[in-house]
Amino acid sequence: MLGRLNHVAIAVPDLAAASAVYRDTLGATVSAPQALPEHGVTVVFIDTGNSKIELLEPLGQGSPIASFLEKNPSGGMHHVCYEVDDILAARDRLKASGACVLGDGEPRIGAHGKPVLFLHPKDFAGTLVELEQA
Amino acid sequence: MLGRLNHVAIAVPDLAAASAVYRDTLGATVSAPQALPEHGVTVVFIDTGNSKIELLEPLGQGSPIASFLEKNPSGGMHHVCYEVDDILAARDRLKASGACVLGDGEPRIGAHGKPVLFLHPKDFAGTLVELEQA
Repeated sequence: MLGRLNHVAIAVPDLAAASAVYRDTLGATVSAPQALPEHGVTVVFIDTGNSKIELLEPLGQGSPIASFLEKNPSGGMHHVCYEVDDILAARDRLKASGACVLGDGEPRIGAHGKPVLFLHPKDFAGTLVELEQA
Repeated sequence: MLGRLNHVAIAVPDLAAASAVYRDTLGATVSAPQALPEHGVTVVFIDTGNSKIELLEPLGQGSPIASFLEKNPSGGMHHVCYEVDDILAARDRLKASGACVLGDGEPRIGAHGKPVLFLHPKDFAGTLVELEQA
């Protein structure tokens, strides 16, 4: 079931500053910022060739990463995203195994325009897991 | 400078239990455990095709992930590892930019038998960064 590691998301308090670190200090190519008001974040992607790093900054009131940044004011790793061939089949298999699918359990459209779901960290060694339709 | 995302490391309190979750719940292929006493951890790798997840369990006294697990008893994302073509050139460039290289600044041999270095999270949006010679 588990497919490619699509991206690792890092929540940051200052997207411009974090982008500059990746671009100038690490010599990476950083995309232009993309505001995703329906997800409460502004994102940039860093292409590592085989995968991506997603830097997330809160956008608007009630951003889903606001409480994470309150606990981790400097930022930190927020979630990993794995691709799956069939997100509905994956969801049903995970629910049957007892894993907690966040929200109403229906996939939403993510930053890449594809259906995504999030799985509660308690079931995955403290790690928030996103699944994205491949 | 920044190359491929070699792996994402997740520290776990119980390697057998976390391996079972990845194998049975997520349907992933999990390697046999590998004890690395010189690094104070036992590891398994999960091959995602394009990259890897490394699950880390403390090994012995004074494991470098012991304090992380005290703060995050269920486990959590511990570091990301990027490949670089020339680890000494990367280190010198990073030091010149003001980044803090951990330890004595000399690469050690990592889990894949290649030279590695760690960079302090304060310089990378709260994220511990490992560099590995490609």
